[in-house]
Amino acid sequence: MIPRLYIDGPLHAGLPAPLSQNQAHYLRNVLCREVGDALRLFNGEDGEYAAEIVELKNKTGAALVKGQTRPQASEPDLTLYFAPVKREPLEVIIQKATEIGVARLIPVITECTTAARLNIDRLRAIGIEAAEQCGRLTVPSVGEPIKLPALLEGWSDNRHLIFCDEAGDDEAEEWGGSKGRAAPILEMLNVRDSKTDRWGILTGPEGGFSVEERKILRAAHFVTPVTLGPRILRADTAAIAALVLWQAALGDWRQS
Amino acid sequence: MIPRLYIDGPLHAGLPAPLSQNQAHYLRNVLCREVGDALRLFNGEDGEYAAEIVELKNKTGAALVKGQTRPQASEPDLTLYFAPVKREPLEVIIQKATEIGVARLIPVITECTTAARLNIDRLRAIGIEAAEQCGRLTVPSVGEPIKLPALLEGWSDNRHLIFCDEAGDDEAEEWGGSKGRAAPILEMLNVRDSKTDRWGILTGPEGGFSVEERKILRAAHFVTPVTLGPRILRADTAAIAALVLWQAALGDWRQS
Repeated sequence: MIPRLYIDGPLHAGLPAPLSQNQAHYLRNVLCREVGDALRLFNGEDGEYAAEIVELKNKTGAALVKGQTRPQASEPDLTLYFAPVKREPLEVIIQKATEIGVARLIPVITECTTAARLNIDRLRAIGIEAAEQCGRLTVPSVGEPIKLPALLEGWSDNRHLIFCDEAGDDEAEEWGGSKGRAAPILEMLNVRDSKTDRWGILTGPEGGFSVEERKILRAAHFVTPVTLGPRILRADTAAIAALVLWQAALGDWRQS
Repeated sequence: MIPRLYIDGPLHAGLPAPLSQNQAHYLRNVLCREVGDALRLFNGEDGEYAAEIVELKNKTGAALVKGQTRPQASEPDLTLYFAPVKREPLEVIIQKATEIGVARLIPVITECTTAARLNIDRLRAIGIEAAEQCGRLTVPSVGEPIKLPALLEGWSDNRHLIFCDEAGDDEAEEWGGSKGRAAPILEMLNVRDSKTDRWGILTGPEGGFSVEERKILRAAHFVTPVTLGPRILRADTAAIAALVLWQAALGDWRQS
């Protein structure tokens, strides 16, 4: 197994790439690699390169970049907007969303969000580790938390938002909601023009969205409410399920 | 929030239902419930009932069963055959598969399976807890581990097996495999007659299936190999993804 590492800097054949302190430690002390061993490197912009370890100490190291092994390719423009949850399911969301192929992760603070302060650097590190393992040529970006009303006010018209409305339609019918019944998510995705390039998926906190939030979301012209089956999914399961279905129906799981 | 509990015994309106030691402890010491508080009970056969706590001590307790709140309904006949992995992703598989709605979980020992001895009782308990939380009227069964060759030899002809072949087709083409290229899983599910009632999904261990195993699987008439996108998914992510896609395309996520 050739270790695959994300490099936060340029990659050019024939030039050295410095390894971070964590990377040097990981290669030397966890994987027992040494000078001369092979690596694969990517930086999210220049594709993937073969490389060779040319220096490896406890806290520093460097690789010599060799030939390109894969060119950079375009990836689906899919953002997950997720209400932060407890540490374990939160880390599951970041790891799985990265593997499934999300471009961007934005924590959204909703009325019922109970999670404490987020360690965004830790979430980014989980995304990088998952990207290294799953063979992606990019790492997902992790944004700063934003409150739901601010997110919707600043929404760009050319991104479509799938609202995973676990609470279902019963209440929404009482309001006389403008969107009618929420469709099963795959039904909605199957009738969508896949030419709509920019998508977002919104999932809620453990307590769900408030009635007021659901009204505002369902009234927005860029939002389509969907259902995720007859059972109550945990927040992390719902996020994973919606991302998988989007990738399989409209994303890059189709050609593989 | 009314606690929802699985009862391993009959449920009849007007009769008492004994609570287990764990349930009594959970209600009393974790949820701070007391005599007179409401419950929902289900046993996998008789639907869901309202109930009231009539006795609650540290190690024993009982509920009085009242009216039925939901009738028992039929559920999709979907089995997950999974190679055991490390504890954390293994527990994620059991929990998420239960929420997504799998009927049966069978650990399958493959050539590259490295997981140590399985605690089947612990896995069953995770399935019961997930069933209680997600609103299912059944708990998934968790079978004893079986080796892959024995599983395939004893296969019942009327169950179709989806083989999540992460290694892709390149090698398979060299063998001149009988199945041609593996299709993206959703493409395969979309052309399938949903009248085929009994399905299984097979996912591998962290190291994947051996070439020999892949040959045998692809040669079996009840097996369809599929791909799960261009990235390398962890074992738990692959299992969750395949189950979600099956439920959305052919299972009970369609009507909700």
